[in-house]
Amino acid sequence: MVNAGVMSGSGNLMDFLDEPFPDVGTYEDFHTIDWLREKSRDTDRHRKITSKSKESIWEFIKSLLDAWSGWVVMLLIGLLAGTLAGVIDLAVDWMTDLKEGVCLSAFWYSHEQCCWTSNETTFEDRDKCPLWQKWSELLVNQSEGASAYIVNYLMYILWALLFAFLAVSLVRVFAPYACGSGIPEIKTILSGFIIRGYLGKWTLLIKTVTLVLVVSSGLSLGKEGPLVHVACCCGNFFSSLFSKYSKNEGKRREVLSAAAAAGVSVAFGAPIGGVLFSLEEVSYYFPLKTLWRSFFAALVAAFTLRSINPFGNSRLVLFYVEYHTPWRRKTTRLGKYPVLEVIVVTAITAIIAYPNPYTRQSTSELISELFNDCGALESSQLCDYINDPNMTRPVDDIPDRPAGVGVYTAMWQLALALIFKIVITIFTFGMKIPSGLFIPSMAVGAMAGRMVGIGVEQLAYHHHDWIIFRNWCRPGADCVTPGLYAMVGAAACLGGVTRMTVSLVVIMFELTGGLEYIVPLMAAAVTSKWVADAFGKEGIYEAHIHLNGYPFLDVKDEFTHRTLATDVMRPRRGEPPLSVLTQDSMTVEDVETLIKETDYNGFPVVVSRDSERLIGFAQRRELILAIKNARQRQEGIVSNSIMYFTEEPPELPANSPHPLKLRRILNLSPFTVTDHTPMETVVDIFRKLGLRQCLVTRSGRLLGIITKKDVLRHMAQMANQDPESIMFN
Amino acid sequence: MVNAGVMSGSGNLMDFLDEPFPDVGTYEDFHTIDWLREKSRDTDRHRKITSKSKESIWEFIKSLLDAWSGWVVMLLIGLLAGTLAGVIDLAVDWMTDLKEGVCLSAFWYSHEQCCWTSNETTFEDRDKCPLWQKWSELLVNQSEGASAYIVNYLMYILWALLFAFLAVSLVRVFAPYACGSGIPEIKTILSGFIIRGYLGKWTLLIKTVTLVLVVSSGLSLGKEGPLVHVACCCGNFFSSLFSKYSKNEGKRREVLSAAAAAGVSVAFGAPIGGVLFSLEEVSYYFPLKTLWRSFFAALVAAFTLRSINPFGNSRLVLFYVEYHTPWRRKTTRLGKYPVLEVIVVTAITAIIAYPNPYTRQSTSELISELFNDCGALESSQLCDYINDPNMTRPVDDIPDRPAGVGVYTAMWQLALALIFKIVITIFTFGMKIPSGLFIPSMAVGAMAGRMVGIGVEQLAYHHHDWIIFRNWCRPGADCVTPGLYAMVGAAACLGGVTRMTVSLVVIMFELTGGLEYIVPLMAAAVTSKWVADAFGKEGIYEAHIHLNGYPFLDVKDEFTHRTLATDVMRPRRGEPPLSVLTQDSMTVEDVETLIKETDYNGFPVVVSRDSERLIGFAQRRELILAIKNARQRQEGIVSNSIMYFTEEPPELPANSPHPLKLRRILNLSPFTVTDHTPMETVVDIFRKLGLRQCLVTRSGRLLGIITKKDVLRHMAQMANQDPESIMFN
Repeated sequence: MVNAGVMSGSGNLMDFLDEPFPDVGTYEDFHTIDWLREKSRDTDRHRKITSKSKESIWEFIKSLLDAWSGWVVMLLIGLLAGTLAGVIDLAVDWMTDLKEGVCLSAFWYSHEQCCWTSNETTFEDRDKCPLWQKWSELLVNQSEGASAYIVNYLMYILWALLFAFLAVSLVRVFAPYACGSGIPEIKTILSGFIIRGYLGKWTLLIKTVTLVLVVSSGLSLGKEGPLVHVACCCGNFFSSLFSKYSKNEGKRREVLSAAAAAGVSVAFGAPIGGVLFSLEEVSYYFPLKTLWRSFFAALVAAFTLRSINPFGNSRLVLFYVEYHTPWRRKTTRLGKYPVLEVIVVTAITAIIAYPNPYTRQSTSELISELFNDCGALESSQLCDYINDPNMTRPVDDIPDRPAGVGVYTAMWQLALALIFKIVITIFTFGMKIPSGLFIPSMAVGAMAGRMVGIGVEQLAYHHHDWIIFRNWCRPGADCVTPGLYAMVGAAACLGGVTRMTVSLVVIMFELTGGLEYIVPLMAAAVTSKWVADAFGKEGIYEAHIHLNGYPFLDVKDEFTHRTLATDVMRPRRGEPPLSVLTQDSMTVEDVETLIKETDYNGFPVVVSRDSERLIGFAQRRELILAIKNARQRQEGIVSNSIMYFTEEPPELPANSPHPLKLRRILNLSPFTVTDHTPMETVVDIFRKLGLRQCLVTRSGRLLGIITKKDVLRHMAQMANQDPESIMFN
Repeated sequence: MVNAGVMSGSGNLMDFLDEPFPDVGTYEDFHTIDWLREKSRDTDRHRKITSKSKESIWEFIKSLLDAWSGWVVMLLIGLLAGTLAGVIDLAVDWMTDLKEGVCLSAFWYSHEQCCWTSNETTFEDRDKCPLWQKWSELLVNQSEGASAYIVNYLMYILWALLFAFLAVSLVRVFAPYACGSGIPEIKTILSGFIIRGYLGKWTLLIKTVTLVLVVSSGLSLGKEGPLVHVACCCGNFFSSLFSKYSKNEGKRREVLSAAAAAGVSVAFGAPIGGVLFSLEEVSYYFPLKTLWRSFFAALVAAFTLRSINPFGNSRLVLFYVEYHTPWRRKTTRLGKYPVLEVIVVTAITAIIAYPNPYTRQSTSELISELFNDCGALESSQLCDYINDPNMTRPVDDIPDRPAGVGVYTAMWQLALALIFKIVITIFTFGMKIPSGLFIPSMAVGAMAGRMVGIGVEQLAYHHHDWIIFRNWCRPGADCVTPGLYAMVGAAACLGGVTRMTVSLVVIMFELTGGLEYIVPLMAAAVTSKWVADAFGKEGIYEAHIHLNGYPFLDVKDEFTHRTLATDVMRPRRGEPPLSVLTQDSMTVEDVETLIKETDYNGFPVVVSRDSERLIGFAQRRELILAIKNARQRQEGIVSNSIMYFTEEPPELPANSPHPLKLRRILNLSPFTVTDHTPMETVVDIFRKLGLRQCLVTRSGRLLGIITKKDVLRHMAQMANQDPESIMFN
């Protein structure tokens, strides 16, 4: 600060970015970043590197490395996110099977891996290979009968409780931020909010471990949302390795956007869907450059996962996992005892889920079975149709057939499972464990869809002379595919919960690998969105953000009221005047008092209190740092020193103490609007430019200030006043 | 204007939107729209409808209709664009075949349709059905031999010349805007520029007809770009039917964005690729609401086309068509004679193309053949491999085989075709006919790719002990697929020309129907982008926009220079001061003189020339209209009348004429920045908020003005000064 006057001249915001004292340019926790400023800082850094690069070969190489670091970070994120997703899949597979039995040759083998090398040749026999022992076989030496069933039932419940207890304890003790799906918080962070530790290394570690535990415990939740959170933690970790990203909150968010895409990519094996999800649902500030990088990260992640994936299945569904977000339940009695809550819900889940085959199997297996079409060789209960004895040979294009007894059994079991899933998923929402909503919603939709599909199929078979069937369904043809109904149902249910549209359709067809179902999927997505919108405009993520009171300015909300900036700005009529600094007449003590008595994030600087002509804006945090720094290091700075923001020191009477120049921390280009600016425009400016605050002037005089929180408060007020206006958006 | 004082009070921009006199709120040709203002106007309209909707059932239904009109427009655009694309496909099919022969049973049948009902059973025979007569058979009654060849050759050239002449004449006489691909202009229009008639009904009609003609003529051009233009014309037409869109240039552009997506969708049968293309390449202002609507329009269009498509092919390639944009050739001697130019290029194309089978067939057929893998039954020359006599039966998984004589013939024919295509495509660019660049680029890439693929395949077959092959290519295995090389080559070439990335990959896999090739396609896209970027950052569309000098502020360009608003604003140092209006001291005559002597689009209004405190901004066009209107209809308005922008009339001496109140046309919320604002921020603001101009102030005093053209001029200047900085973006 001693040679503060040397560089002035153009004296703009950038001058102090050589970090003359520490912590300048960083933000406090739970504060909003200033996008424009972050952008300027990055441009400045970039300009410095570019001009240095002409000096020597070494600097040139360094500048190239800097230019490529974005791609390197994307590569690393893709690799780590894919690896973690693969490890989670493997571990879940093993631990889910552990609830039923153990492998004698190596306890860390899952059922499938255990029987992989077994000699049994047929498919059913291989499931019963001797190396794999159910708990009843191991403990009471019986594989069938009532006592075996009870032992297996109890062990299933015990393991589930153990996993759930471990998970909730780990989250509680080590990383409270690891609970939930994380998507609402990530949306908020990407919009420019700072939540320290939310994407930290501990969260990464604990969320990965507990995710395995809760999914294995059989709770009605999914792993997609948490995987997005895990991928964003990876993104945050790798961006901390490169100063380009670690020192700039704006650039860091570009990386996080791409990491979110990589997360969805590994959650569903849907790289394009992931990019679109990031664009449509999660990201706030999404420059087109990021689109391509996100795509790269998403692809690397998907292929890393695919190369790890040990099941080698090229089945309909690639990688089943799921999303989840806590429901609107802020206060329940159980909610105060998170561990107990988890234990109780797990116990109920395990007790009810075990007897029904459709709830006992993992949800992703269930969905896969529901989506599948019945080939002639399919052994599933859902495919127990009565075959025509005249049918020549098993081909894949099988005509509609009457349902056998297995299908009827499956129908009522599915009906029970559907009710159970709906109820238990509501209770599982928002427990203090990592949890996703995607798979449970898809399962609910798929069950309902499959049941409708079977119903229509049987109707069409028995009544193919009805008008609705006659035109397109000849007897003996394959006209109704119940699996497709399940898929459409899953898409519709998911669409209703999340209000995703384009990305939902893309994810669904990437999951199922077929472009041909795009029309029914799209019809389902749009219908469910419209129906759901009739109940309320908010998707589950937005609802959660509002519930938690994060300062999130949704890009999708439209503000259509006729208010003006003057109606929203502070101070209101009757309030004390705005706290301002003058450019060259306040002492250090005056400013310190002002800082102590107010909690504003910053103060406008005016020529004088009379003229009220605005010259700039000074951040509270930087004022404090600058004064502290000056008092420690600069000679002659006392409480009586005049602070000045002009280029030249003011003319002071003799004997007055040495003045303190603070032009460096003055933002000379604060954002201003006139008092007549419609709030609609103001909202647009806040959104698009990512402002923290905006000053209001009239005929060049400073009138007031509007902060992001003022804007949000005003929008909430207006929405409450006139709820009907929402439906016309 | 008589009761101008009644509504004042909040007296903002919206007050005059009841259109008190005609033409207020519209723009002149070749001017830029003001996005913020268009948005306010739409909100205002919307608010009015919402409040009216509570008055009666009828108004409520009207408001619902208004809310749904967006979807209706999308549906109509999808239907019309799909239908037009289908009709174009059918017509091109027929006219392309007309160059070779004619169907005797019905002259409007294409070769395939003609032989459809023929009794010949094998595939080759059906091509030679008796109803289809080649010109040589019809004219000289010979089907083989030298004279037949010559007759067919001449007829081919004659038809090509006729089609090309018709096309260029139609464009010249009826719709000069129908030439080229249209994508650069559409990008410019979507960014907020007005080009009247560019999307008019005549352009729609003539472009559709001439597109058929030029594609049929066999010129080296494609129909994708023009199809995007045609779809946008449809969008413009339908938006003119709904006042919501016809009266608001901003809302109209939302529809056009979606229409562009529908255009790509029908051009390639790639609805998702179309939406991404619109997002990545074409659109400027893309609210997320439009994403979903674009997707809807794109899907409707694709399915309309598919249901029209009479070929019933479920082949690899769905709907081949292509893009195209004029190359950088502004002045050639031929360019002055557009008709002659077209005739000459067509003649050369036809003469050279006929003898080589790979240039004679339509480019989309060529690409389809190049992409195809060689099954055992494939009869193409490219698949003439020497089969192993021990091979048991024709399966689809054929091992690598040595090339037969047909493959070698194909290789040199392809090489010649490649050279010819490259050269002739350069000359075809930018002729005054509708022309797309997509298919020719893909064809060039596919030819090169297929040749490389065959080379590698033969290398691998003959040298499978080489290190590079040893690890992954056992003898007798199918390790190299030349068709995939062709696909990758096509993607790479297209990527280099257009610099599309994500949308390119998505379009390519939607075209080929397989997600599994995403890695090679992506590698190709990213490599070609990097290589091409080394030669220059601009894609062909941006190059064309700059060439034509459109005021287009690219979202992707980054501005990284350290200039400030004060360096760019007008007036510069030494220039006469800014032309301003004062709020209550100028007479009508003063203003009329000012308007006459300057050609600025608008004037800032200040309190007085001394204080220079800004109170608003008045548009030139609206000033002229308001004065004209007042002189005609308001009593007492003479040249000496004082014009005032304040709410209350100024105190005037007795006997002075009646003053003229103009507050209604005053924009009370003009955009301002301080003189110290970095230009980087200013560019960002112009881009994101779609401004036309921005006022520059210092300490509340008006200093100058920056218009969009000033910004563009400054950016071009800086880019020229320091070209090296570009590479680090």
